[in-house]
Amino acid sequence: MSQTPLLTALRDLLGEAGLRVGLASGGAEEDLSAFEKDWRGRYQGRALAVASPSSTEQVAAVVRLCAAHGVSIVPQGGNTGLVGGGVPDASGSQILLSLRRLQAVRELDAANLTLTVEAGCSLQAVQEAAAEQGLLFPLSLASEGSCTIGGNLASNAGGTQVLRYGNARELCLGLEVVTASGDIWSGLSGLRKDNTGYDLRHLFIGSEGTLGIITAATLKLYPAPQAQLTALATCADLNATVALLALAQAQTGAALTAFELMNDAAMTLLRRHLPQLVQPLSPSPWTVLLELSDCENETHAQAQLEQLLSEAVNRGLVQDAAVAQSLAQSHTMWQLRESISMAQSKEGLNIKHDIALPVSRIPAFVAATDAALRAGFPGVRLITFGHLGDGNLHYNVQAPEGVSAAEFLATQEPAINRLVYDAVQQFGGSISAEHGIGQLKREELALRKDPVALALMRSIKSALDPQGVFNPGRLL
Amino acid sequence: MSQTPLLTALRDLLGEAGLRVGLASGGAEEDLSAFEKDWRGRYQGRALAVASPSSTEQVAAVVRLCAAHGVSIVPQGGNTGLVGGGVPDASGSQILLSLRRLQAVRELDAANLTLTVEAGCSLQAVQEAAAEQGLLFPLSLASEGSCTIGGNLASNAGGTQVLRYGNARELCLGLEVVTASGDIWSGLSGLRKDNTGYDLRHLFIGSEGTLGIITAATLKLYPAPQAQLTALATCADLNATVALLALAQAQTGAALTAFELMNDAAMTLLRRHLPQLVQPLSPSPWTVLLELSDCENETHAQAQLEQLLSEAVNRGLVQDAAVAQSLAQSHTMWQLRESISMAQSKEGLNIKHDIALPVSRIPAFVAATDAALRAGFPGVRLITFGHLGDGNLHYNVQAPEGVSAAEFLATQEPAINRLVYDAVQQFGGSISAEHGIGQLKREELALRKDPVALALMRSIKSALDPQGVFNPGRLL
Repeated sequence: MSQTPLLTALRDLLGEAGLRVGLASGGAEEDLSAFEKDWRGRYQGRALAVASPSSTEQVAAVVRLCAAHGVSIVPQGGNTGLVGGGVPDASGSQILLSLRRLQAVRELDAANLTLTVEAGCSLQAVQEAAAEQGLLFPLSLASEGSCTIGGNLASNAGGTQVLRYGNARELCLGLEVVTASGDIWSGLSGLRKDNTGYDLRHLFIGSEGTLGIITAATLKLYPAPQAQLTALATCADLNATVALLALAQAQTGAALTAFELMNDAAMTLLRRHLPQLVQPLSPSPWTVLLELSDCENETHAQAQLEQLLSEAVNRGLVQDAAVAQSLAQSHTMWQLRESISMAQSKEGLNIKHDIALPVSRIPAFVAATDAALRAGFPGVRLITFGHLGDGNLHYNVQAPEGVSAAEFLATQEPAINRLVYDAVQQFGGSISAEHGIGQLKREELALRKDPVALALMRSIKSALDPQGVFNPGRLL
Repeated sequence: MSQTPLLTALRDLLGEAGLRVGLASGGAEEDLSAFEKDWRGRYQGRALAVASPSSTEQVAAVVRLCAAHGVSIVPQGGNTGLVGGGVPDASGSQILLSLRRLQAVRELDAANLTLTVEAGCSLQAVQEAAAEQGLLFPLSLASEGSCTIGGNLASNAGGTQVLRYGNARELCLGLEVVTASGDIWSGLSGLRKDNTGYDLRHLFIGSEGTLGIITAATLKLYPAPQAQLTALATCADLNATVALLALAQAQTGAALTAFELMNDAAMTLLRRHLPQLVQPLSPSPWTVLLELSDCENETHAQAQLEQLLSEAVNRGLVQDAAVAQSLAQSHTMWQLRESISMAQSKEGLNIKHDIALPVSRIPAFVAATDAALRAGFPGVRLITFGHLGDGNLHYNVQAPEGVSAAEFLATQEPAINRLVYDAVQQFGGSISAEHGIGQLKREELALRKDPVALALMRSIKSALDPQGVFNPGRLL
């Protein structure tokens, strides 16, 4: 093994189980690629070593050691990020700090509807800890089996129930964080109100490991709903989908827990690559998936959903609709929505845009941007889907039929990104809705973010991490 | 008028309508006491002048001028704060910056459920702008006729509907802020998702004018409910109130928009000083006010409320209950809750504590702290009420019957505060739930806040306001 003083000190601190030394250190190496490469294989770095502390105190000690040796730290949870924010750079000089061994469920307080867990718990483990008490932790995303709650908070994850419950940010009441000085901020709190100074919690949430290391969190829980119903509906145009959303919000209030959008190009790819997934409605320009969660019972939910859909048909908003009659049918409807990415990857590489817009401006944005892309890149296929209730589109661009996807990307990606992001800005949107910045959008951020906001962010980074210990070259 | 260069420059910038010069400046003085004194008359300062810009650009110019002259700024909205955070110090050297002239409603986007307003709009004006479109801005507090939305955000105001809709913080999607360098951060946004860097919005919200000056905000709106129902219920002990809350949350979900608590001592003061307010239920240790807001209709709300209350009676949680049969009855029930402060002030001065605790720990906290106070201060009266659904108690201590309130306060307030705040800390609570820190609790904060958190807060203050232009001596 390597004999550098830092590695020796880390091994003394963490023991054999807590430190893996990679190729870069030149000793008896282990294969660290599960940590050094992101799961989509877009980013491949090299770490000096992977440190896996088993307690918050050990995390703090790792930070102090690294700071003393002038070595920077890349924190990592489940390594499921989409923007390369959790993998090391190519230098071989960074310590990758894995939080996965911090897995304790510290406390579930049912009467306070809170759950305190350590950062390395998988999102699914958090959901299950709540469900065991008949309670709901509503954050839900495709990678929930392997992503960690610490990563969810560091990246302010979104997912499918944001419309009702908010992003990861809104589901967190308190944090425990190791700061760049190696101190532990004990900010775990089960309080719904606390006006004692600056909200440090919201500063660390979404900071992508650049300001501090989240080691534990106190999360909000909700009573589990008594019934959930899913429906699909087709709409002739985007204006109708937006009007249907408003009607659903007015008639069903907080019972509306999902409102997802899929365009016909997305449904076409599903039919082609996943024909086993039944599409209950005839092809239409737009398909919406609605979910109601009811605190009374299934009969009440059914009545609300039927009233909503019949009113929507009467108003001419909906062409056709299907309500899931069983859990299996509901599952299939969700599978349609969640399999679009897989269908896309079977079709070939594509250019992804995770964007947000004011809901009211989505029809005009899509009309203008679709038209500009079709004019500039004839034959291009626009796979548009996402969380309409949150104004969050996954606005993805696929090569024309028969054109090499790799070649299309290599030649057209920069111009397509520029066109799309210019339009996003013009319509008052965000170039990263729920995936974050990481490495992928760092340059775009520097170009496009309000310069006053960038200056404030840089001041905060310098104030909280003056040595630049945490995740340099990511986000900012 | 004063001829100091700063005042001359400010008058050139703002005109006669935008600058009032006070006693401290030694010129032809105006009475500035409406700005220099807080509304409860606890804090009286002296300002060099009151600057009242009429645009964000003017606010930025005022900040640049003050910074150039080394003069500090105290921002003020409706001057309804409870902790002295918005009044100047006694030096006569500070500029009081009133935001009240920034009153434009910039945009209501119904399809996006957002409203963009300037900081000087009263909370009531914001509510009304939403209501005109059949929409709801749910922040609601006693001072809503005169407090401003800028002040609500700077202090992260709470109020009566936090249980369902969150604090002011949770109701804000974007901000426009003038920074200490006199730049304008244009962070107005109608986006529900935006993961492009640190959440600056949440840093300015609740910072009490010490980090920047909020000049406008984009707020979340909701569809207006179709029906609202109010009920009172009596409970034999606090454990029963907490169990009733859990039952109500499970059975009615997000329809539960208020869950307020009043102890018998509070009801006794109401009977004594406001006998015209009908109390529909017999005296009991604890009275709870519940409110349901329904997106369907009154019949549905009635059925839900009756089912909840009858289940609660069956479980032995509720002794007696009354459902308001008219808007007038509902109004009277709310008046009971909202008149406690007035009844208290008619009874004489008292020692107020705006505290938050995990809901689950409130029964034990109240039992322990009541007992300690009764033991240490025989005959003391404990007026306990508040927003139980948020874990927020107004835990107020009144002198024993027949004892001079002024003398009691003068001799006992420090010891009583120490006892109460020690207990709050021991039970994992907050010494300021919704009123903030300002001048009132600044020393307590320095003593009691986690030192790592304090150090982080001071770093942020130095980074964002290195000259100390904004509201020095407040909060930190």
